[in-house]
Amino acid sequence: MAENWVLTATAQTPTNIAVIKYWGKRDETLILPVNDSISVTLDPSHLCTTTTVAVSPTFQQDRMWLNGKEVSLSGVRYQNCLREIRGRAGDLEDKEKGIKIEKKDWEKLHVHVSSYNNFPTAAGLASSAAGFACLVFALAKLMNVKEDHSKLSAIARQGSGSACRSLFGGFVKWVMGKEEDGNDSLAVQLVDEKHWDDLVIIIAVVSSRQKETSSTTGMRESVETSLLLKHRAEEIVPKRILQMEEAIKNRDFASFAQLTCADSNQFHAVCLDTSPPIFYMNDTSHRIISCVEKWNRTEGSPQVAYTFDAGPNAVLIARDRKTATQLLQRLLFHFPPKPDTDLNSYVIGDKSILKDAGLEGTKDVEALLPPPEVVNAPAQKYPGDVSYFICTRPGEGPVLLSDESLSLLDPKTGLPK
Amino acid sequence: MAENWVLTATAQTPTNIAVIKYWGKRDETLILPVNDSISVTLDPSHLCTTTTVAVSPTFQQDRMWLNGKEVSLSGVRYQNCLREIRGRAGDLEDKEKGIKIEKKDWEKLHVHVSSYNNFPTAAGLASSAAGFACLVFALAKLMNVKEDHSKLSAIARQGSGSACRSLFGGFVKWVMGKEEDGNDSLAVQLVDEKHWDDLVIIIAVVSSRQKETSSTTGMRESVETSLLLKHRAEEIVPKRILQMEEAIKNRDFASFAQLTCADSNQFHAVCLDTSPPIFYMNDTSHRIISCVEKWNRTEGSPQVAYTFDAGPNAVLIARDRKTATQLLQRLLFHFPPKPDTDLNSYVIGDKSILKDAGLEGTKDVEALLPPPEVVNAPAQKYPGDVSYFICTRPGEGPVLLSDESLSLLDPKTGLPK
Repeated sequence: MAENWVLTATAQTPTNIAVIKYWGKRDETLILPVNDSISVTLDPSHLCTTTTVAVSPTFQQDRMWLNGKEVSLSGVRYQNCLREIRGRAGDLEDKEKGIKIEKKDWEKLHVHVSSYNNFPTAAGLASSAAGFACLVFALAKLMNVKEDHSKLSAIARQGSGSACRSLFGGFVKWVMGKEEDGNDSLAVQLVDEKHWDDLVIIIAVVSSRQKETSSTTGMRESVETSLLLKHRAEEIVPKRILQMEEAIKNRDFASFAQLTCADSNQFHAVCLDTSPPIFYMNDTSHRIISCVEKWNRTEGSPQVAYTFDAGPNAVLIARDRKTATQLLQRLLFHFPPKPDTDLNSYVIGDKSILKDAGLEGTKDVEALLPPPEVVNAPAQKYPGDVSYFICTRPGEGPVLLSDESLSLLDPKTGLPK
Repeated sequence: MAENWVLTATAQTPTNIAVIKYWGKRDETLILPVNDSISVTLDPSHLCTTTTVAVSPTFQQDRMWLNGKEVSLSGVRYQNCLREIRGRAGDLEDKEKGIKIEKKDWEKLHVHVSSYNNFPTAAGLASSAAGFACLVFALAKLMNVKEDHSKLSAIARQGSGSACRSLFGGFVKWVMGKEEDGNDSLAVQLVDEKHWDDLVIIIAVVSSRQKETSSTTGMRESVETSLLLKHRAEEIVPKRILQMEEAIKNRDFASFAQLTCADSNQFHAVCLDTSPPIFYMNDTSHRIISCVEKWNRTEGSPQVAYTFDAGPNAVLIARDRKTATQLLQRLLFHFPPKPDTDLNSYVIGDKSILKDAGLEGTKDVEALLPPPEVVNAPAQKYPGDVSYFICTRPGEGPVLLSDESLSLLDPKTGLPK
C-alpha cells in the first residue's frame, strides 16, 4: 500500500432556522436540549457550508482551515465529533488508488478539514450549525460510516446543538430525547423541501453596534436564572411542537405563521427574563416586526412569519412568491440601501424576487410608494439600518460533491488549494 | 344659605414607580389586578400632580381642566371615581362662609377640577397615577369623606390601577384582593419615606420615535395572548412580593436591586410574549441596562437598580448619594446633552447631585473620563438619545395645601386662575 496517498470527500450542507426554538441545555457536554425544536432548512444555493475532509498517512496531526484561515481543532466540540465519527468508521477499499483501510486503522490516521461558508460567518446566520453538520457528514462519507442521517445528527449535535437539524432538508424536528447518553437526542425529517415549496424566505441582515452574548453563554444563563424558561420548556413547547407539526403537514400558513412568530417572541422574552438580561433584537428588529404585524393585521390573515435567532437579523417567511414580492417592496421602502450602495449587492440570493418586484436599481427603490397600511402615517425610512437582504427558500439537506474541482483541499498535498 | 359660594380644596400627590410590577387585570371595569405589586413613591418636590377641586351651587356641570386645558370628565374612569366619592361624602359646615352641606346634597352639587403636573405629561412618568390619586384625595377632603387612605386608594384604583399606590409615601403595596367587588383591592404602606432615606433616584427620560401601546391596551392583550403571564402572576410574583417586603424592611439593597431588575425585565418579557409583541424598551433603554449591569458586576454587588414602566424611560435607584453621583457621571458620559442643550435644563430635580458630581457645565461633561469598567472598550457616546434626567428620591404621600394662593381655581368663580 502506497504511503503518500490522500483520500478526500467534499460535502455541502445547509444552514437552518428554527421555527420552534431551541434555548437551554439539560446537559452542557452532550448538548442535550430542554425541549424539542423544529426548523426549516434554507436553500444551500444561497446559504451553505462546503467542507472537504482528507485523510493521509502523511498527515502529522488533525488540522482545519475555516474560510482559508487555520483554526484549532482542539476544542472539546470538535474533539467529540471526531472521536464519535472515528469510532463508527468502516473498512474502506479504493482499488483504483490501491488503498485499503481497515476499521481499526482510522484511529491512527490524521485528518485535514477545510471549510468555507458562502455567506459572512459573522452575520449571525447559524454558520456553526451548517459547519458542524458538514464536518460530520463529510467525515462520515470519507470514513465509510454506515449510519443514517439521524444517527449522524446525534454526532453533529455534539458540535453545535442546532447542527443536528442541518442533516436534512425541508422541515426538521430535533427530538430532545430522554436517555442520559443522548443517543435518542437527534433530528428527524418531518417533510422534505418539496412538500411546501410555495414558501419564500427573505433574511434581513441587520447592522448592529452591539457585541452579542454567544448563544452558548446566553442559554446557560437563561437556564440558571430565568424563572420563565422551565415553564416554557415543560408546559408550552410540547403543545406547540404538536401544533407546528400539524401546521406543516397541512401547509396551514396561518397556524404556521402564528406559531413561528409567537415562539420567536417567547424565546426573546426568556432572554429578557435572564439575569443579566440578554437583548438580541434591536430597534431595527422591532421595526421589522411592527411592519410585518401591521401588514398581517391589515390583510386579516398572516402573509408573512418572522423569526429571530440569537442576533438582530430577521428571517421572514412569505406564504408565496407574490407575497414575497410585496414583502420585499415593503422592506426596501422602510430600509432602503444607503446612497452609495448598489441594489445588486444589497439584495442577494434569489434575485428573481427583485425582478418580480419591478426593482432594477436604486431609482426604483426611491420611487416605491408607502404600503397601503402605512399610507396615513409619516413615512418611516431607515437607510443603513439593514446591511443587506438575502432572498431564499426552503432547501435540501447535505449532499456529497463528487466533482473533484470543488474540493477545498489539494488532492496531492491535502492542504488548502 | 348664600347661593353664590365656592368651596375649594387643593392637594398635591406624588407619582410612584413599581418595583414589583402590575401587569394584567382580572376585572377591566373595577381595575382588579392579577397580582400584588410594590412601588416606591417619588418625591413630590420633583414629580407630582397638584389638583384643586371646587364645589358651588352655581356650577352647571362637572368640569375639568388638565394643565390649563379643558378635558372631558365623561369617561367611565372619572365617573366611577366621582360616584364613589360622592357616595361617601359627609355633612359639612363652614360657619365662616355660612355654608352647610348635608350628606344627601352632594349628589346635586357639581364640581370643578383643575389639575397640573410639574413634569411633562407625555414623558410616560405615570401622570395618570398621580392624577387620579390627587383627584380622589382632593375630592375626599372637599366632601369630608371620613375614610382612611387605604379605602381612598380603592377608589383611586378605579381611575387608574397604579393610582392606588400614590395614596402613600415611602414603599407601598397594592394588595390584589380576592373579593369580586374589589373592596379589598387596595394599597397599604409598607414603610414611610424616612425608613430608607439613603436611596437616590435618577430618571432618564428617553427620546422615542415610536408611538407606544397604551398600558391599558397592552395589558389586555398580554392577558389574552401571553402564555407566560399567568405563570408569572400565579407562581412567580407571590414569592417575589414576600422577598421584596423583606428586602425593604431590612434595607437590603442587594436583594432589593436584584428583585427590582429581575421583575422589570420579566414584565417586559411578558410584553414581548404578547401577540402582537409589545416593545416598550428601545436600544437606549437596553444601553442603560447594560451600563448598570456592567458596573454592578464589576463592583461585585449591586450599586444601582433599574426599572422600566410602559415606555423607554429608565428609573435608576442608587444605594446612596455617593453612588448616585457616580451613576450620574456614568450616565452623562454615555448620554451627554446635545451641543445646544444647557446642562441646567438637561439634569433637573435635585441638582445637588450634579454639584456633588463636580459637573457645573457642559465643559465638565465633555471632560468626563470613561468609567473604569469600560475603559478598555471603545467609548460609546449617544448624545441626544436621552431627553433629560430627573434627580429625585423616595418621597411623601398626598398632602392638602391650605395656602389659598396655591389653588388652581379662582375662589370666586371656580374657574381656572
